[in-house]
Amino acid sequence: MGEALQLYTYWRSSAAYRVRIGLNLKGLAHDLVPVHLVRDGGQQHAADYVALNPQHLVPTLRHGERVLTQSLAILEYLDEVFPQTPLLPTSAEARARVRALAQVVACDIHPLNNLRVMQYLERTVEADAARREEWTRHWMREGFAALETMLAGSPDTGRFCHGDTPGLADCCLVPQLYNAHRFGVDLAPYPTLQRIEQACLALPVFDRARPEQQPDAQ
Amino acid sequence: MGEALQLYTYWRSSAAYRVRIGLNLKGLAHDLVPVHLVRDGGQQHAADYVALNPQHLVPTLRHGERVLTQSLAILEYLDEVFPQTPLLPTSAEARARVRALAQVVACDIHPLNNLRVMQYLERTVEADAARREEWTRHWMREGFAALETMLAGSPDTGRFCHGDTPGLADCCLVPQLYNAHRFGVDLAPYPTLQRIEQACLALPVFDRARPEQQPDAQ
Repeated sequence: MGEALQLYTYWRSSAAYRVRIGLNLKGLAHDLVPVHLVRDGGQQHAADYVALNPQHLVPTLRHGERVLTQSLAILEYLDEVFPQTPLLPTSAEARARVRALAQVVACDIHPLNNLRVMQYLERTVEADAARREEWTRHWMREGFAALETMLAGSPDTGRFCHGDTPGLADCCLVPQLYNAHRFGVDLAPYPTLQRIEQACLALPVFDRARPEQQPDAQ
Repeated sequence: MGEALQLYTYWRSSAAYRVRIGLNLKGLAHDLVPVHLVRDGGQQHAADYVALNPQHLVPTLRHGERVLTQSLAILEYLDEVFPQTPLLPTSAEARARVRALAQVVACDIHPLNNLRVMQYLERTVEADAARREEWTRHWMREGFAALETMLAGSPDTGRFCHGDTPGLADCCLVPQLYNAHRFGVDLAPYPTLQRIEQACLALPVFDRARPEQQPDAQ
């Protein structure tokens, strides 16, 4: 599979950040194509981009002629096509655990707080800024409380979410914690999440994927 | 793997409905354990249940001693442990397509509209009933428009979301369309979704999983 990998990304998108980590963990050379979610009324709404991603969302991955959407589907694809440095463990039970941890973030925290939802809350629901910020923090606290229980209570948790090598759940957790810092969520109740974040960000593959390290960061 | 399967379910939960379809598609005998999401202040908040599912959400699957959460993680687990009647195709590219279709529903439509979000919109954001219903319909229309494009525009779409046998994407689509009917979403713009829903519900394995067929239906 020597075909080129191109990731359509936005520096602050936590879904794109997940895939940047996954590509780095696997050591896959790739090009970044910035899609600015605010400029020009949102470049994700441009016809060229919507032809690739009918959801008007980032990320999208091109791999040769293939066009892939949805960050978790992309990460699983990368894991199947490039088996080096697996993102998922081998047993079905462990895989289910890692996927569930990833999905707490990718299904039950992040989609409630992404840009289009915040815009809808402001423009259509007419929720004021204080309520919108409390909304964001509320769903993070709900999800983080569950994750802390799932991680702190399991012997399968190691230096990272599952054992001592980073994987799919860490790809999701670290970007969500970036959002938590940005929105001022008090992380004191989640010591395990904080510990895992530190372990991840100490690795160059995570550090290089950080929003502030992106060519389109502002 | 002759161990017992027990699904903690609520008749109207579309995430639980996905897993009911998956269990039926695979022909797996299982017991249903109803968790009433409204009665008793919400049985999903009872200590016994939270010990199984720290997110206070349905579904949860028990398989022998194993406890599994998150509907997509559960369906992938079932597919790995019980390979008969696979829910995912074999090639990595096709698997990514099916997972992305499933995740449009499971990440970007349903989590915005589930019970806890509707309760928060009412009680904390103080959005009135008209705005809450429009919220629900808005996110369904957004997601359905993307799904219609992804499905109608692909030669991989068959009688079902991927080819001529039902799978993971159909497990997610049909419950979401149940919610669409319930909330009065106009489905005329989505003829492919409607066609696939009809094909699915004509099958006894889908019909038996419908909310109205559940022992806890009211």
